[in-house]
Amino acid sequence: MRIDIISAVPALLDGPLNHSIVKRAIDHNLVEFHVHDLRDYTEDKHNKIDDYPYGGEAGMVLTPQPIFSCIEALKKERRYDEVIFTAPDGEVFNQPTANGLSLKKNIIILCGHYKGVDQRIRDELITKEISIGDFVLSGGELPAMVISDAIVRLLPGVLGDAGSALNDSFQGGLLEGPVYTRPSEFKGLKVPGVLLSGNHKKVEEWKQEQAEKRTKERRKDLYDKFKKEH
Amino acid sequence: MRIDIISAVPALLDGPLNHSIVKRAIDHNLVEFHVHDLRDYTEDKHNKIDDYPYGGEAGMVLTPQPIFSCIEALKKERRYDEVIFTAPDGEVFNQPTANGLSLKKNIIILCGHYKGVDQRIRDELITKEISIGDFVLSGGELPAMVISDAIVRLLPGVLGDAGSALNDSFQGGLLEGPVYTRPSEFKGLKVPGVLLSGNHKKVEEWKQEQAEKRTKERRKDLYDKFKKEH
Repeated sequence: MRIDIISAVPALLDGPLNHSIVKRAIDHNLVEFHVHDLRDYTEDKHNKIDDYPYGGEAGMVLTPQPIFSCIEALKKERRYDEVIFTAPDGEVFNQPTANGLSLKKNIIILCGHYKGVDQRIRDELITKEISIGDFVLSGGELPAMVISDAIVRLLPGVLGDAGSALNDSFQGGLLEGPVYTRPSEFKGLKVPGVLLSGNHKKVEEWKQEQAEKRTKERRKDLYDKFKKEH
Repeated sequence: MRIDIISAVPALLDGPLNHSIVKRAIDHNLVEFHVHDLRDYTEDKHNKIDDYPYGGEAGMVLTPQPIFSCIEALKKERRYDEVIFTAPDGEVFNQPTANGLSLKKNIIILCGHYKGVDQRIRDELITKEISIGDFVLSGGELPAMVISDAIVRLLPGVLGDAGSALNDSFQGGLLEGPVYTRPSEFKGLKVPGVLLSGNHKKVEEWKQEQAEKRTKERRKDLYDKFKKEH
């Protein structure tokens, strides 16, 4: 898989791309990341990539030319399955969307910019608009990394244990219940006895019960959906 | 405001903390960020901070001791308003939560770890669990940065223009409509005439109409809520 990220502040992407699971996936040739600095594509003599919005509002808006130039150059090289734009008014990102994107071959992610991008870019070039939630961020770089991380960890071979991703919260329609690790007692706080019992059947029952309980308490919406389907 | 971030992979936070709006806020002394590497707090002789989960599942779980040591050390220095944990089963992050957190003085954000943290940490130390959405990530560092970015940009003085944050999508209960910038024509694509008219009243009416239209089309839930309240 290949992911091209287009950004006005590419340095923001340094940490996440050079560490963590994404780095591991890159090192193992399971994914290619290419970051494109919008400033490399501007034809403006002052190197500008944004301008004031029409209609007199606060904030700056990314201009059409550098983004059109960048995306058109990429599309000449290969076919892209999706050109994604990160925007608070896009479709809300979730695990099924991550699952779907992890099956694609080439995707572009255009990072939104604080006040936005010229609407003509969205109308002409973007195939999918994604929001990571109902909150406003200073740019689309963090959402682009969130989307990338969620996708990359699903690619075959990325997680050490092939079973890991399938046990996740959301993949089975339930939140995961509590987890415990060593030591069995810490500052007087004990791990639930059933987990130390060695009785696999009981452990599995307890986990399922806890997952349902937590989902019911915290996310009635997911719980009702789960109960309807099971 | 002071934000302490506790992480098993602090290098992941480098990019976002050293660039963007967060960096600007730090430089202007509007916020202090302190990143704590969990490995600095482990008493394990092999420097371990995680261990296998009880009950035999895939993935590693953060152990209690380093996190208890770190948070207890911080709490000795000052009073914290919230100790936040980033987890997919937490309350879903949104703009009202960001607004609320931006009024706090000291907060700790403990970054979740892929398979989770020992439940005793959550039971004893955490005051607020936040999820940024219904998808699974490889760690809590990106969510911690998302939360931080959403908070920091609301602090007085951080955004260049005081009006900016108030115009955001979600702050007025509606998504923002389309924005356009120069040039007024690009590759034959034109900016809507009303924005070039100079008629402020008409421009404002058009913006409101577009915001309502976009919200109705894309987020019926927000639109219905808006209509009920206005």
